[in-house]
Amino acid sequence: MRDLAGDRLTNEVLASFDGATTARFQAVMQNLVEHLHAFAREVNLTEDEWAAGIEFLTRTGQTCTDTRQEFILFSDTLGLSMQVVGINHPAKAGATESTVLGPFFVPNAPLYRNGDNLANGAPGEPCFVSGQVRTTSDEPLAGAHLEVWQADDDGLYDVQRDSLGGAQNRGQLDTDEQGRFWFWSVKPVPYPIPHDGPVGAMLTAAGRSPMRPAHIHFRVTKPGYAPLITHVFVAGDPYLDADAVFGVKESLIAAFERHEPGLVPDGSELSQPFYTVHYGFVLAPAPGPGQ
Amino acid sequence: MRDLAGDRLTNEVLASFDGATTARFQAVMQNLVEHLHAFAREVNLTEDEWAAGIEFLTRTGQTCTDTRQEFILFSDTLGLSMQVVGINHPAKAGATESTVLGPFFVPNAPLYRNGDNLANGAPGEPCFVSGQVRTTSDEPLAGAHLEVWQADDDGLYDVQRDSLGGAQNRGQLDTDEQGRFWFWSVKPVPYPIPHDGPVGAMLTAAGRSPMRPAHIHFRVTKPGYAPLITHVFVAGDPYLDADAVFGVKESLIAAFERHEPGLVPDGSELSQPFYTVHYGFVLAPAPGPGQ
Repeated sequence: MRDLAGDRLTNEVLASFDGATTARFQAVMQNLVEHLHAFAREVNLTEDEWAAGIEFLTRTGQTCTDTRQEFILFSDTLGLSMQVVGINHPAKAGATESTVLGPFFVPNAPLYRNGDNLANGAPGEPCFVSGQVRTTSDEPLAGAHLEVWQADDDGLYDVQRDSLGGAQNRGQLDTDEQGRFWFWSVKPVPYPIPHDGPVGAMLTAAGRSPMRPAHIHFRVTKPGYAPLITHVFVAGDPYLDADAVFGVKESLIAAFERHEPGLVPDGSELSQPFYTVHYGFVLAPAPGPGQ
Repeated sequence: MRDLAGDRLTNEVLASFDGATTARFQAVMQNLVEHLHAFAREVNLTEDEWAAGIEFLTRTGQTCTDTRQEFILFSDTLGLSMQVVGINHPAKAGATESTVLGPFFVPNAPLYRNGDNLANGAPGEPCFVSGQVRTTSDEPLAGAHLEVWQADDDGLYDVQRDSLGGAQNRGQLDTDEQGRFWFWSVKPVPYPIPHDGPVGAMLTAAGRSPMRPAHIHFRVTKPGYAPLITHVFVAGDPYLDADAVFGVKESLIAAFERHEPGLVPDGSELSQPFYTVHYGFVLAPAPGPGQ
């Protein structure tokens, strides 16, 4: 293997993965190498562009912290994340559709009970969120586990605020014996994805907006069922057709209804206006072995 | 743009770059997006694999420091760097061939004069390196600028040693009025690229060796001539046909001759065995505007 260039070089790099520890790793890496080389050759990548790419990837990695995932943001804004969602979660008859996880999921969020307020002091207009988790055979799913996270009225997730003591607008809870869940939060607003880093610079160079339509994130799981990662979007949001991460699905848009001060759904009284949204999740059975 | 998946998703992401600030950025990013999406779909990338990729890229960025460039290593080991070399430096009649820059180049290395010892205390067998820089019309090039860097007898570059006060086996010097250069260094040895990081893990999973054949790096520049980035490899090295970064070119292999203690080429006496290598560089004229 000397004097390698062009196709001969690509073939030699492909062959270097022939002894991979698993056939899957070999297949994935060989496909990646073919596309990477084809990319460089098709665009006639210059050395300055290659160096800019190395620099971009380095900064992207170094922008990541425990609470910021710039590479997920890069994947999201290139539509790669939605491709992976589409590959792994093709629409299943009757089941709720999936969308991107996004960069702000945090495991082990605080545990709540139905009726609790997940806002935990976050700025925003009160929003009562309720729904039911059901199977594709329309049976209610008791004890389904919900992980919920969303931005506040400033368009910020708790992990984007430096000096916060604990989680805000983020928590876990279970459905009751009738598969129902209900909690308080704040009405989500549209917001820009973090755009002070490399991905923001990429969007600027692309002439693209960093805005996402308002939404609440949900991860819904129950043993025996396919885990669901999705959002509930706010009907009427001006960015529903211009999501920076290409994540909107028609079936995930719900009406957030505004109410004047007064009686709230749990029977208590509220002295300020509030919102309600009701959305049902339908979980598909877990794929069997080999599926 | 709702309910995007598959080709429709890819097309929407491509269109999102239509307003890019430059046509070149648009073209490069659109090609990249097409290949990224095709990769994910062709291999049916799972969510776990996507997450492993995000994690790999993040660690790769975070492994980079002022003196370690893990993303260049990744590009090198995937043969992408050599593709970029091939695209930008197709063989020019009579000119010295190019190879990878590698991750260990450091700008502003110490300035030396011909005859100086660049080893600066680095372990290894003394090696007298000499040659001439010429044009493709076979004229000697006075005042050509050489940047030289190489690993020591332990296979380490100076920047890989934590507690070093200054540069070792690294420096800059100019050719004399007859285009000649000469300096002392140590005989390079084959070495593994840094493999304690993410790229090392990738090579292990691929069943690949991290070894590179022994070489000295050169960057040779002179206004009016195309900059040359290359290596001089040691003839007979066992890894010439198994370079972890696919960088070997037949024309860049030179004999490193071993000598018993005695008179050295600059007329002085050496009490230990030493090596000599002589290699000539030929610079092509700089491409004109628009070329």
